Amino acid sequence: MTAPLDFWFDFASTYSYPAAMRMEALAQAKGVTVNWRPFLLGPIFVAHGWNDSPFNVYPVKGVYMWRDLERICRDLGFGFRKPRIFPQNSLKAARIGLIAADDGFAPAFTRWVYVANFVQGENIADDHVLTTILKKLDRDPETIFARAMAPENKERLKAQTAEAVSLGIFGAPSFTVGTELFWGSDRQDQALAWSAK
Amino acid sequence: MTAPLDFWFDFASTYSYPAAMRMEALAQAKGVTVNWRPFLLGPIFVAHGWNDSPFNVYPVKGVYMWRDLERICRDLGFGFRKPRIFPQNSLKAARIGLIAADDGFAPAFTRWVYVANFVQGENIADDHVLTTILKKLDRDPETIFARAMAPENKERLKAQTAEAVSLGIFGAPSFTVGTELFWGSDRQDQALAWSAK
Repeated sequence: MTAPLDFWFDFASTYSYPAAMRMEALAQAKGVTVNWRPFLLGPIFVAHGWNDSPFNVYPVKGVYMWRDLERICRDLGFGFRKPRIFPQNSLKAARIGLIAADDGFAPAFTRWVYVANFVQGENIADDHVLTTILKKLDRDPETIFARAMAPENKERLKAQTAEAVSLGIFGAPSFTVGTELFWGSDRQDQALAWSAK
Repeated sequence: MTAPLDFWFDFASTYSYPAAMRMEALAQAKGVTVNWRPFLLGPIFVAHGWNDSPFNVYPVKGVYMWRDLERICRDLGFGFRKPRIFPQNSLKAARIGLIAADDGFAPAFTRWVYVANFVQGENIADDHVLTTILKKLDRDPETIFARAMAPENKERLKAQTAEAVSLGIFGAPSFTVGTELFWGSDRQDQALAWSAK
């Protein structure tokens, strides 16, 4: 018996990149069901009084984070290149992410968006970049965009972010198993163990 | 060939507690020499615009931290009780910590102070608590207090904190191997591996 794990991520979030790359494979190996839950950190940071990523607000933390992330990606074998834009605008990718979760292609879509951001140096707010990813996954970009930009889907993303806040989430990646919260890519294995126990 | 590892901690810092408990044994097992370097987070937090621990400034992070720390301590087999006072005044313990490092009893002294703080619920700024610890270690409290409170030792602690800042340190525990910085108890094994490689 395993409990489902909710994986909370923002497509602009740096440490969410290695977590997203490992999530599906780790969960498969443990027999854990994952709910892929894109949300937006921006409104949460604003509520903390930050109008930017805390890694930009506190530059000494930012310098450390980029070096730490580089070491983590190297240890895990994932490519990494510091993006020119940070943080990127992750709104449209998150809206599509909800549709991807509905239609069962969240893991691959999510990984491609993170690779575009942190390996290929692409702008993930660019329709062309998102179109290329959707085509790779044999999805019709026009249909997906229309569903993603529908008013009810926009509201869904707001509700998802509000639910994150209600669970005590303040950063990404986060993992919840019921009401038990784990924060950070360095808690991913612990969260999976909690699910599987 | 291993490179020495500098272990930076503040006696008030929560995640420094499990790191301090593991440090000596892990380093012995890897053949790594550790420099025990108490410093003060207070002046660093003030420079970030916080007049209190960020876990108090951002309560949602604080709620998470206490739960996370409880889980970590349980997994490692260390006792844990949330202190009534947080953060504690770690100034005098840090001054004594410098003397303990000079005289070779830093590991045991450091562990006892963290146990007093996070297991026994003691006030680590209290002379009586520090005296009890020094006696347990067969040190003469009067002599140690006199050396700890000497003007040149007070200056040494300021210099140690300034050196931490110059290395890019912004939190505790931190670990440095040369100029390579690792932050957080969850980076302790990685820092040791870096030392030993």
